[in-house]
Amino acid sequence: MTHTPAIILVAPQLGENIGMVARAMLNCGLTDLRIVNPRDGWPSDHANRASSGALEKGVIARVFDTTADAVSDLHFTLATTARPRDMIKDVYTATSAMETAHAKITDGQGVGVLFGAERTGLENEDIALASAIITIPLNPDFSSLNLAQAVLLVAYEFMIQGDKTPDKQFMTGKTDIASADTIDQFTGRLIDGLSDNGFFKSPDMRPTVERNLINLFARQTWTDQDIKTLQGVLSSFIKK
Amino acid sequence: MTHTPAIILVAPQLGENIGMVARAMLNCGLTDLRIVNPRDGWPSDHANRASSGALEKGVIARVFDTTADAVSDLHFTLATTARPRDMIKDVYTATSAMETAHAKITDGQGVGVLFGAERTGLENEDIALASAIITIPLNPDFSSLNLAQAVLLVAYEFMIQGDKTPDKQFMTGKTDIASADTIDQFTGRLIDGLSDNGFFKSPDMRPTVERNLINLFARQTWTDQDIKTLQGVLSSFIKK
Repeated sequence: MTHTPAIILVAPQLGENIGMVARAMLNCGLTDLRIVNPRDGWPSDHANRASSGALEKGVIARVFDTTADAVSDLHFTLATTARPRDMIKDVYTATSAMETAHAKITDGQGVGVLFGAERTGLENEDIALASAIITIPLNPDFSSLNLAQAVLLVAYEFMIQGDKTPDKQFMTGKTDIASADTIDQFTGRLIDGLSDNGFFKSPDMRPTVERNLINLFARQTWTDQDIKTLQGVLSSFIKK
Repeated sequence: MTHTPAIILVAPQLGENIGMVARAMLNCGLTDLRIVNPRDGWPSDHANRASSGALEKGVIARVFDTTADAVSDLHFTLATTARPRDMIKDVYTATSAMETAHAKITDGQGVGVLFGAERTGLENEDIALASAIITIPLNPDFSSLNLAQAVLLVAYEFMIQGDKTPDKQFMTGKTDIASADTIDQFTGRLIDGLSDNGFFKSPDMRPTVERNLINLFARQTWTDQDIKTLQGVLSSFIKK
Protein backbone atom coordinates (compact mmCIF):
# COMPACT_ATOMS: atom_id res chain seq x y z
CA MET A 1 0.00 0.00 0.00
CA THR A 2 1.50 3.30 -1.05
CA HIS A 3 0.95 6.52 0.89
CA THR A 4 -0.72 8.18 -2.07
CA PRO A 5 -3.99 7.34 -3.84
CA ALA A 6 -4.05 4.73 -6.60
CA ILE A 7 -5.12 6.12 -9.96
CA ILE A 8 -7.36 3.60 -11.70
CA LEU A 9 -8.02 4.02 -15.42
CA VAL A 10 -11.01 1.98 -16.56
CA ALA A 11 -10.85 0.85 -20.21
CA PRO A 12 -8.60 3.67 -21.44
CA GLN A 13 -8.25 3.80 -25.21
CA LEU A 14 -4.99 5.49 -26.19
CA GLY A 15 -1.60 4.46 -24.83
CA GLU A 16 -0.53 8.08 -25.24
CA ASN A 17 -3.17 9.18 -22.71
CA ILE A 18 -2.03 6.54 -20.23
CA GLY A 19 1.51 7.86 -20.56
CA MET A 20 0.37 11.44 -19.99
CA VAL A 21 -1.55 10.28 -16.93
CA ALA A 22 1.63 8.65 -15.57
CA ARG A 23 3.51 11.91 -16.11
CA ALA A 24 0.83 13.99 -14.34
CA MET A 25 0.82 11.48 -11.46
CA LEU A 26 4.57 11.61 -10.90
CA ASN A 27 4.54 15.42 -11.16
CA CYS A 28 2.43 15.24 -8.00
CA GLY A 29 4.26 12.34 -6.34
CA LEU A 30 1.70 9.60 -7.12
CA THR A 31 3.07 6.22 -8.20
CA ASP A 32 0.29 3.57 -8.07
CA LEU A 33 -1.28 3.31 -11.54
CA ARG A 34 -3.87 0.60 -12.19
CA ILE A 35 -5.16 0.01 -15.71
CA VAL A 36 -8.36 -1.96 -16.23
CA ASN A 37 -8.67 -3.63 -19.60
CA PRO A 38 -6.73 -1.16 -21.80
CA ARG A 39 -8.10 -1.22 -25.35
CA ASP A 40 -4.70 -1.20 -27.07
CA GLY A 41 -2.97 -3.63 -24.69
CA TRP A 42 -0.10 -3.23 -22.28
CA PRO A 43 2.83 -2.50 -22.19
CA SER A 44 2.61 0.31 -24.72
CA ASP A 45 5.37 2.17 -26.56
CA HIS A 46 3.01 5.11 -27.02
CA ALA A 47 2.49 5.24 -23.25
CA ASN A 48 6.22 5.06 -22.54
CA ARG A 49 6.98 7.92 -24.89
CA ALA A 50 4.16 10.14 -23.63
CA SER A 51 5.11 9.55 -19.98
CA SER A 52 8.37 11.55 -20.38
CA GLY A 53 10.11 8.90 -18.28
CA ALA A 54 7.47 8.71 -15.52
CA LEU A 55 6.87 5.00 -16.21
CA GLU A 56 10.58 4.30 -15.70
CA LYS A 57 11.26 6.76 -12.90
CA GLY A 58 8.61 5.97 -10.34
CA VAL A 59 5.11 5.15 -11.54
CA ILE A 60 4.32 1.45 -11.23
CA ALA A 61 1.61 0.38 -13.68
CA ARG A 62 -0.40 -2.82 -13.21
CA VAL A 63 -3.13 -4.24 -15.43
CA PHE A 64 -6.40 -5.76 -14.16
CA ASP A 65 -9.24 -7.54 -15.93
CA THR A 66 -12.07 -5.88 -14.00
CA THR A 67 -12.65 -2.75 -11.96
CA ALA A 68 -13.61 -4.94 -8.99
CA ASP A 69 -10.16 -6.62 -9.14
CA ALA A 70 -8.42 -3.25 -9.39
CA VAL A 71 -10.07 -1.85 -6.23
CA SER A 72 -10.13 -5.07 -4.18
CA ASP A 73 -7.41 -4.08 -1.66
CA LEU A 74 -8.65 -0.50 -1.22
CA HIS A 75 -10.82 0.88 1.59
CA PHE A 76 -12.15 4.03 -0.03
CA THR A 77 -12.62 4.56 -3.75
CA LEU A 78 -13.84 7.65 -5.52
CA ALA A 79 -15.38 7.74 -8.99
CA THR A 80 -14.85 10.83 -11.14
CA THR A 81 -17.80 11.95 -13.24
CA ALA A 82 -18.38 15.14 -15.21
CA ARG A 83 -22.02 15.36 -14.19
CA PRO A 84 -24.03 13.79 -11.37
CA ARG A 85 -25.75 10.53 -12.31
CA ASP A 86 -29.01 9.19 -11.03
CA MET A 87 -27.21 7.31 -8.29
CA ILE A 88 -27.36 7.43 -4.49
CA LYS A 89 -23.89 8.49 -3.37
CA ASP A 90 -21.85 11.18 -1.62
CA VAL A 91 -20.47 13.77 -4.05
CA TYR A 92 -17.24 15.55 -3.15
CA THR A 93 -15.40 18.45 -4.73
CA ALA A 94 -11.85 17.51 -5.76
CA THR A 95 -10.48 19.52 -2.84
CA SER A 96 -12.63 17.92 -0.16
CA ALA A 97 -12.23 14.46 -1.73
CA MET A 98 -8.45 14.71 -1.43
CA GLU A 99 -8.68 16.14 2.11
CA THR A 100 -10.69 13.04 2.97
CA ALA A 101 -8.27 10.79 1.05
CA HIS A 102 -5.32 12.31 2.88
CA ALA A 103 -6.96 11.70 6.26
CA LYS A 104 -7.83 8.10 5.37
CA ILE A 105 -4.34 7.34 4.05
CA THR A 106 -2.82 8.84 7.21
CA ASP A 107 -5.15 6.46 9.07
CA GLY A 108 -3.65 3.50 7.18
CA GLN A 109 -6.42 3.02 4.61
CA GLY A 110 -5.96 2.43 0.89
CA VAL A 111 -7.57 5.02 -1.37
CA GLY A 112 -8.18 4.91 -5.13
CA VAL A 113 -9.67 7.23 -7.72
CA LEU A 114 -11.47 5.79 -10.76
CA PHE A 115 -11.34 7.52 -14.15
CA GLY A 116 -13.41 6.36 -17.12
CA ALA A 117 -12.49 6.02 -20.77
CA GLU A 118 -11.86 9.07 -22.93
CA ARG A 119 -15.20 10.52 -24.16
CA THR A 120 -17.54 7.98 -22.54
CA GLY A 121 -16.39 8.19 -18.91
CA LEU A 122 -17.21 5.59 -16.27
CA GLU A 123 -20.04 3.08 -16.68
CA ASN A 124 -22.70 3.03 -13.98
CA GLU A 125 -21.48 -0.47 -12.99
CA ASP A 126 -18.05 1.00 -12.15
CA ILE A 127 -19.52 3.95 -10.27
CA ALA A 128 -21.63 1.55 -8.19
CA LEU A 129 -18.38 0.02 -6.84
CA ALA A 130 -17.10 3.35 -5.56
CA SER A 131 -17.50 4.70 -2.03
CA ALA A 132 -18.26 8.18 -3.34
CA ILE A 133 -18.11 10.51 -6.34
CA ILE A 134 -15.81 13.41 -7.25
CA THR A 135 -17.17 16.10 -9.52
CA ILE A 136 -14.74 18.84 -10.53
CA PRO A 137 -16.64 22.13 -10.85
CA LEU A 138 -15.72 23.26 -14.39
CA ASN A 139 -17.20 25.82 -16.78
CA PRO A 140 -20.54 24.14 -17.62
CA ASP A 141 -20.38 25.50 -21.18
CA PHE A 142 -16.95 24.03 -21.85
CA SER A 143 -16.19 21.19 -19.51
CA SER A 144 -14.39 18.61 -21.66
CA LEU A 145 -11.15 17.90 -19.83
CA ASN A 146 -8.75 15.33 -21.23
CA LEU A 147 -7.90 12.29 -19.13
CA ALA A 148 -4.43 13.43 -18.05
CA GLN A 149 -5.74 16.86 -17.06
CA ALA A 150 -8.48 15.33 -14.91
CA VAL A 151 -5.88 13.12 -13.22
CA LEU A 152 -3.57 16.13 -12.81
CA LEU A 153 -6.21 18.14 -10.94
CA VAL A 154 -6.99 15.28 -8.56
CA ALA A 155 -3.31 14.39 -8.01
CA TYR A 156 -2.47 18.07 -7.46
CA GLU A 157 -5.24 18.40 -4.87
CA PHE A 158 -3.80 15.38 -3.05
CA MET A 159 -0.27 16.71 -3.18
CA ILE A 160 -1.10 20.12 -1.74
CA GLN A 161 -2.88 18.49 1.22
CA GLY A 162 0.45 17.39 2.63
CA ASP A 163 2.40 20.38 1.41
CA LYS A 164 3.93 22.62 4.05
CA THR A 165 4.83 25.54 1.77
CA PRO A 166 3.71 28.79 3.41
CA ASP A 167 0.95 30.62 1.51
CA LYS A 168 3.22 33.58 0.93
CA GLN A 169 6.94 33.97 1.53
CA PHE A 170 9.07 37.01 0.98
CA MET A 171 12.09 35.79 -0.99
CA THR A 172 15.05 38.07 -0.34
CA GLY A 173 17.76 36.21 -2.27
CA LYS A 174 21.15 36.86 -0.66
CA THR A 175 20.07 39.98 1.23
CA ASP A 176 17.93 40.57 4.33
CA ILE A 177 14.76 42.48 5.03
CA ALA A 178 15.64 46.08 5.88
CA SER A 179 15.04 47.18 9.46
CA ALA A 180 12.99 50.28 10.31
CA ASP A 181 16.25 52.01 11.20
CA THR A 182 17.73 51.36 7.73
CA ILE A 183 14.60 52.70 6.05
CA ASP A 184 14.56 55.67 8.42
CA GLN A 185 18.14 56.58 7.49
CA PHE A 186 17.12 56.63 3.85
CA THR A 187 13.97 58.71 4.28
CA GLY A 188 15.85 61.09 6.59
CA ARG A 189 18.55 61.61 3.96
CA LEU A 190 15.89 62.00 1.23
CA ILE A 191 14.06 64.68 3.23
CA ASP A 192 17.31 66.54 4.02
CA GLY A 193 18.24 66.47 0.32
CA LEU A 194 14.82 67.81 -0.67
CA SER A 195 15.07 70.50 2.01
CA ASP A 196 18.50 71.63 0.70
CA ASN A 197 16.91 71.74 -2.79
CA GLY A 198 14.18 74.11 -1.62
CA PHE A 199 11.47 71.43 -2.10
CA PHE A 200 9.45 72.57 0.92
CA LYS A 201 8.03 75.86 -0.32
CA SER A 202 5.92 76.52 2.75
CA PRO A 203 7.10 75.61 6.29
CA ASP A 204 3.47 74.83 7.22
CA MET A 205 3.28 72.05 4.60
CA ARG A 206 6.55 70.42 5.58
CA PRO A 207 5.22 68.15 8.38
CA THR A 208 2.46 66.75 6.10
CA VAL A 209 4.80 66.14 3.15
CA GLU A 210 7.38 64.56 5.45
CA ARG A 211 4.73 62.24 6.90
CA ASN A 212 3.53 61.25 3.42
CA LEU A 213 7.07 60.42 2.30
CA ILE A 214 7.75 58.43 5.47
CA ASN A 215 4.49 56.51 4.99
CA LEU A 216 5.19 55.89 1.30
CA PHE A 217 8.37 54.02 2.19
CA ALA A 218 7.21 52.50 5.48
CA ARG A 219 4.26 50.58 4.07
CA GLN A 220 6.32 48.53 1.61
CA THR A 221 8.71 45.71 2.40
CA TRP A 222 12.31 46.59 1.50
CA THR A 223 15.53 44.63 1.66
CA ASP A 224 18.94 46.01 2.60
CA GLN A 225 19.83 45.62 -1.10
CA ASP A 226 16.80 47.71 -2.14
CA ILE A 227 17.74 50.52 0.26
CA LYS A 228 21.36 50.39 -0.90
CA THR A 229 20.14 50.79 -4.50
CA LEU A 230 17.86 53.69 -3.53
CA GLN A 231 20.66 55.34 -1.51
CA GLY A 232 22.85 55.17 -4.64
CA VAL A 233 20.08 56.74 -6.73
CA LEU A 234 19.66 59.49 -4.12
CA SER A 235 23.40 60.17 -3.99
CA SER A 236 23.41 60.63 -7.76
CA PHE A 237 20.66 63.27 -7.53
CA ILE A 238 22.14 65.03 -4.50
CA LYS A 239 25.54 65.35 -6.22
CA LYS A 240 23.87 66.73 -9.31
CA MET B 1 -11.24 44.35 -17.96
CA THR B 2 -12.55 40.81 -17.50
CA HIS B 3 -13.48 39.41 -14.10
CA THR B 4 -10.91 36.64 -14.43
CA PRO B 5 -7.11 36.83 -14.60
CA ALA B 6 -5.39 37.40 -17.95
CA ILE B 7 -3.13 34.52 -18.96
CA ILE B 8 0.02 35.93 -20.56
CA LEU B 9 2.24 33.58 -22.56
CA VAL B 10 5.69 35.04 -23.12
CA ALA B 11 7.40 33.85 -26.31
CA PRO B 12 5.56 30.53 -26.61
CA GLN B 13 6.97 28.23 -29.29
CA LEU B 14 4.29 25.83 -30.50
CA GLY B 15 0.86 26.92 -31.71
CA GLU B 16 -0.45 23.58 -30.43
CA ASN B 17 0.53 24.53 -26.88
CA ILE B 18 -1.19 27.90 -27.18
CA GLY B 19 -4.35 26.10 -28.29
CA MET B 20 -4.17 23.69 -25.35
CA VAL B 21 -3.71 26.66 -23.03
CA ALA B 22 -6.87 28.27 -24.46
CA ARG B 23 -8.77 25.02 -23.86
CA ALA B 24 -7.56 24.75 -20.24
CA MET B 25 -8.47 28.42 -19.68
CA LEU B 26 -12.03 28.06 -20.95
CA ASN B 27 -12.48 24.83 -18.95
CA CYS B 28 -12.05 27.08 -15.93
CA GLY B 29 -13.97 30.09 -17.28
CA LEU B 30 -10.94 32.27 -18.18
CA THR B 31 -11.12 34.20 -21.46
CA ASP B 32 -8.34 36.83 -21.61
CA LEU B 33 -5.32 35.32 -23.40
CA ARG B 34 -2.33 37.54 -24.19
CA ILE B 35 0.49 36.23 -26.33
CA VAL B 36 3.84 38.01 -26.34
CA ASN B 37 5.92 37.50 -29.45
CA PRO B 38 4.85 33.96 -30.45
CA ARG B 39 7.68 32.19 -32.29
CA ASP B 40 5.50 30.70 -35.03
CA GLY B 41 3.27 33.73 -35.57
CA TRP B 42 -0.41 34.37 -35.00
CA PRO B 43 -3.13 33.37 -35.86
CA SER B 44 -2.22 29.69 -35.91
CA ASP B 45 -4.07 26.72 -37.39
CA HIS B 46 -2.26 24.43 -34.95
CA ALA B 47 -3.57 26.55 -32.07
CA ASN B 48 -7.13 26.54 -33.38
CA ARG B 49 -7.16 22.76 -33.74
CA ALA B 50 -5.62 22.11 -30.31
CA SER B 51 -8.03 24.50 -28.59
CA SER B 52 -11.01 22.17 -29.23
CA GLY B 53 -13.07 25.23 -30.07
CA ALA B 54 -12.01 27.35 -27.08
CA LEU B 55 -10.59 30.07 -29.38
CA GLU B 56 -13.96 30.37 -31.14
CA LYS B 57 -16.21 29.84 -28.13
CA GLY B 58 -14.97 32.35 -25.61
CA VAL B 59 -11.21 32.86 -25.29
CA ILE B 60 -10.08 36.15 -26.82
CA ALA B 61 -6.42 36.05 -27.85
CA ARG B 62 -4.37 39.20 -28.40
CA VAL B 63 -0.74 39.50 -29.48
CA PHE B 64 1.77 41.94 -27.95
CA ASP B 65 5.34 42.83 -28.88
CA THR B 66 6.67 43.02 -25.34
CA THR B 67 5.77 41.73 -21.89
CA ALA B 68 5.60 45.34 -20.65
CA ASP B 69 2.90 46.08 -23.28
CA ALA B 70 0.96 42.95 -22.35
CA VAL B 71 0.74 43.86 -18.65
CA SER B 72 0.37 47.63 -19.03
CA ASP B 73 -3.32 47.87 -18.00
CA LEU B 74 -3.00 45.38 -15.10
CA HIS B 75 -2.62 46.19 -11.41
CA PHE B 76 -1.21 42.92 -10.11
CA THR B 77 0.84 40.47 -12.15
CA LEU B 78 2.22 37.14 -11.05
CA ALA B 79 5.15 35.34 -12.67
CA THR B 80 5.19 31.53 -12.65
CA THR B 81 8.57 29.89 -12.08
CA ALA B 82 9.47 26.29 -11.36
CA ARG B 83 12.14 27.23 -8.87
CA PRO B 84 12.86 30.41 -6.90
CA ARG B 85 15.33 32.76 -8.60
CA ASP B 86 17.79 35.06 -6.99
CA MET B 87 15.24 37.87 -6.98
CA ILE B 88 13.63 39.92 -4.23
CA LYS B 89 9.90 39.20 -4.47
CA ASP B 90 6.89 37.70 -2.70
CA VAL B 91 6.41 34.01 -3.53
CA TYR B 92 2.88 32.58 -3.39
CA THR B 93 1.54 29.07 -3.69
CA ALA B 94 -0.94 28.71 -6.56
CA THR B 95 -3.79 28.53 -4.04
CA SER B 96 -2.87 31.67 -2.12
CA ALA B 97 -1.98 33.53 -5.34
CA MET B 98 -5.46 32.92 -6.72
CA GLU B 99 -7.10 33.80 -3.39
CA THR B 100 -5.26 37.10 -3.64
CA ALA B 101 -6.14 37.47 -7.34
CA HIS B 102 -9.80 36.83 -6.58
CA ALA B 103 -9.82 39.49 -3.86
CA LYS B 104 -8.10 42.04 -6.10
CA ILE B 105 -10.42 41.37 -9.05
CA THR B 106 -13.44 41.72 -6.74
CA ASP B 107 -11.88 45.05 -5.74
CA GLY B 108 -11.86 46.15 -9.40
CA GLN B 109 -8.18 45.50 -10.14
CA GLY B 110 -6.79 43.80 -13.24
CA VAL B 111 -4.74 40.66 -12.60
CA GLY B 112 -2.48 38.71 -14.94
CA VAL B 113 -0.34 35.60 -14.72
CA LEU B 114 2.85 35.31 -16.78
CA PHE B 115 4.02 31.96 -18.18
CA GLY B 116 7.37 31.55 -19.92
CA ALA B 117 8.30 29.61 -23.04
CA GLU B 118 8.27 25.82 -23.09
CA ARG B 119 11.54 24.45 -21.59
CA THR B 120 13.22 27.78 -20.83
CA GLY B 121 10.51 29.51 -18.75
CA LEU B 122 10.43 33.22 -18.02
CA GLU B 123 13.47 35.46 -18.43
CA ASN B 124 14.59 37.44 -15.38
CA GLU B 125 13.61 40.64 -17.23
CA ASP B 126 10.01 39.41 -17.41
CA ILE B 127 9.96 38.30 -13.78
CA ALA B 128 11.23 41.75 -12.72
CA LEU B 129 8.01 43.26 -14.17
CA ALA B 130 5.78 41.09 -12.00
CA SER B 131 4.30 42.07 -8.64
CA ALA B 132 5.01 38.62 -7.22
CA ILE B 133 5.89 35.01 -8.03
CA ILE B 134 3.84 31.80 -8.07
CA THR B 135 5.67 28.54 -7.48
CA ILE B 136 3.58 25.36 -7.74
CA PRO B 137 4.90 22.81 -5.24
CA LEU B 138 5.53 19.75 -7.44
CA ASN B 139 7.51 16.56 -6.95
CA PRO B 140 11.07 17.98 -6.94
CA ASP B 141 12.38 14.84 -8.67
CA PHE B 142 9.89 15.11 -11.55
CA SER B 143 8.60 18.63 -11.88
CA SER B 144 8.40 19.24 -15.64
CA LEU B 145 4.83 20.32 -16.30
CA ASN B 146 3.77 21.24 -19.80
CA LEU B 147 2.56 24.76 -20.48
CA ALA B 148 -1.17 23.91 -20.69
CA GLN B 149 -0.99 21.90 -17.46
CA ALA B 150 0.64 24.78 -15.60
CA VAL B 151 -2.06 27.12 -16.90
CA LEU B 152 -4.74 24.56 -15.97
CA LEU B 153 -3.60 24.40 -12.33
CA VAL B 154 -3.56 28.19 -11.96
CA ALA B 155 -6.89 28.65 -13.78
CA TYR B 156 -8.45 25.85 -11.71
CA GLU B 157 -7.27 27.48 -8.48
CA PHE B 158 -8.89 30.74 -9.59
CA MET B 159 -12.13 29.04 -10.56
CA ILE B 160 -12.59 27.23 -7.24
CA GLN B 161 -12.13 30.50 -5.33
CA GLY B 162 -15.51 31.68 -6.50
CA ASP B 163 -17.13 28.25 -6.53
CA LYS B 164 -20.02 27.70 -4.16
CA THR B 165 -20.24 23.89 -4.49
CA PRO B 166 -20.51 22.34 -1.02
CA ASP B 167 -17.50 20.22 -0.01
CA LYS B 168 -19.68 17.13 0.21
CA GLN B 169 -23.27 16.58 -0.86
CA PHE B 170 -25.33 13.44 -0.51
CA MET B 171 -26.88 12.85 -3.91
CA THR B 172 -30.09 10.86 -3.54
CA GLY B 173 -31.32 10.86 -7.14
CA LYS B 174 -35.12 10.61 -7.17
CA THR B 175 -35.47 9.31 -3.62
CA ASP B 176 -35.12 10.93 -0.18
CA ILE B 177 -32.96 10.28 2.83
CA ALA B 178 -34.63 7.68 5.05
CA SER B 179 -35.93 8.89 8.40
CA ALA B 180 -34.98 7.18 11.67
CA ASP B 181 -38.48 5.72 11.77
CA THR B 182 -38.07 4.07 8.36
CA ILE B 183 -34.75 2.55 9.39
CA ASP B 184 -36.24 1.48 12.72
CA GLN B 185 -39.08 -0.37 10.97
CA PHE B 186 -36.50 -2.29 8.96
CA THR B 187 -34.24 -3.20 11.87
CA GLY B 188 -37.31 -4.15 13.94
CA ARG B 189 -38.51 -6.50 11.20
CA LEU B 190 -34.99 -7.90 10.79
CA ILE B 191 -34.71 -8.64 14.50
CA ASP B 192 -38.17 -10.24 14.60
CA GLY B 193 -37.26 -12.43 11.62
CA LEU B 194 -34.00 -13.50 13.26
CA SER B 195 -35.86 -14.21 16.51
CA ASP B 196 -38.37 -16.43 14.67
CA ASN B 197 -35.40 -18.20 13.09
CA GLY B 198 -33.91 -19.04 16.48
CA PHE B 199 -30.92 -16.70 15.85
CA PHE B 200 -30.75 -15.57 19.50
CA LYS B 201 -29.39 -18.72 21.18
CA SER B 202 -29.09 -17.17 24.64
CA PRO B 203 -31.63 -14.66 26.00
CA ASP B 204 -28.76 -12.89 27.87
CA MET B 205 -27.00 -12.10 24.60
CA ARG B 206 -30.06 -10.75 22.84
CA PRO B 207 -29.88 -7.09 24.05
CA THR B 208 -26.22 -6.78 22.97
CA VAL B 209 -26.78 -8.34 19.56
CA GLU B 210 -29.86 -6.19 19.02
CA ARG B 211 -27.91 -3.06 19.92
CA ASN B 212 -25.10 -4.02 17.53
CA LEU B 213 -27.55 -4.55 14.67
CA ILE B 214 -29.34 -1.27 15.39
CA ASN B 215 -26.00 0.57 15.47
CA LEU B 216 -24.79 -1.11 12.28
CA PHE B 217 -27.72 0.36 10.36
CA ALA B 218 -28.03 3.62 12.28
CA ARG B 219 -24.53 4.91 11.57
CA GLN B 220 -24.88 4.85 7.78
CA THR B 221 -26.92 7.18 5.61
CA TRP B 222 -29.77 5.38 3.84
CA THR B 223 -32.37 6.53 1.38
CA ASP B 224 -35.99 5.37 1.24
CA GLN B 225 -35.00 3.45 -1.92
CA ASP B 226 -32.16 1.67 -0.05
CA ILE B 227 -34.48 0.58 2.74
CA LYS B 228 -37.10 -0.56 0.22
CA THR B 229 -34.42 -2.69 -1.45
CA LEU B 230 -33.30 -4.12 1.89
CA GLN B 231 -36.92 -4.81 2.92
CA GLY B 232 -37.34 -6.79 -0.31
CA VAL B 233 -34.19 -8.75 0.44
CA LEU B 234 -35.43 -9.48 3.95
CA SER B 235 -38.88 -10.57 2.72
CA SER B 236 -37.19 -13.06 0.41
CA PHE B 237 -35.23 -14.62 3.28
CA ILE B 238 -38.19 -14.59 5.71
CA LYS B 239 -40.42 -16.39 3.17
CA LYS B 240 -37.72 -18.98 2.60
